[in-house]
Amino acid sequence: MTDHTSPALTTALAYHDAWTSKDLEKAMTYIADDIVCDAPAGRIEGVEAYRAFLAPFAQTLLSTKMIAAFGDEETALVMYDTESIPVPSAPGAECVTVTNGKITYSRFLFDRAPFLAAAQAAS
Amino acid sequence: MTDHTSPALTTALAYHDAWTSKDLEKAMTYIADDIVCDAPAGRIEGVEAYRAFLAPFAQTLLSTKMIAAFGDEETALVMYDTESIPVPSAPGAECVTVTNGKITYSRFLFDRAPFLAAAQAAS
Repeated sequence: MTDHTSPALTTALAYHDAWTSKDLEKAMTYIADDIVCDAPAGRIEGVEAYRAFLAPFAQTLLSTKMIAAFGDEETALVMYDTESIPVPSAPGAECVTVTNGKITYSRFLFDRAPFLAAAQAAS
Repeated sequence: MTDHTSPALTTALAYHDAWTSKDLEKAMTYIADDIVCDAPAGRIEGVEAYRAFLAPFAQTLLSTKMIAAFGDEETALVMYDTESIPVPSAPGAECVTVTNGKITYSRFLFDRAPFLAAAQAAS
């Protein structure tokens, strides 16, 4: 299911492996300084804003499992499942554009509903 | 971005084109009778349940745009944006398993939050 001949996918998987093993510093080495990420709650611009978006979730992550991963020269598309402290099963999908080994654009998709419900239950 | 040499992707795109052009009957010809679909609200089993899941959204769909589509022999992964009456921009991602030209399993991902908010605002 995974085509390792895709340069974009190689970067996307290295980034994925880094953040899901909670090595956020390493993950950020694959993110362009001027990344633009369209996430469920809106647009995120710049690597520091992206780190602030990803860090809280990475901290609560318990496990992850890749569902499918594909890519070509400049685009990679991955879907994975996550188990985190607030939500036992929450899939995510990321479609990333990669230039010179860095993710410059990301369309980041997950269902916010179970996270909003967990936050409400905790408050 | 789209590999038309993938048999699974050919089926996934034919199904996608059919339901997004509101030809639900044609779309269902690509769905196995015993489809299992893991959607945000839970598991859907069987083609009739799947039709009941897809039909209401297809009816409110105004436009759609493929973001990326990849596949291999038996798996396809697509991400697309949708514009619908309740929500102006809502991406979806589907990872499907295809056997003999029919989708037998689907992991179906979208963010329920804007749809829940729209339903709440309308009630």
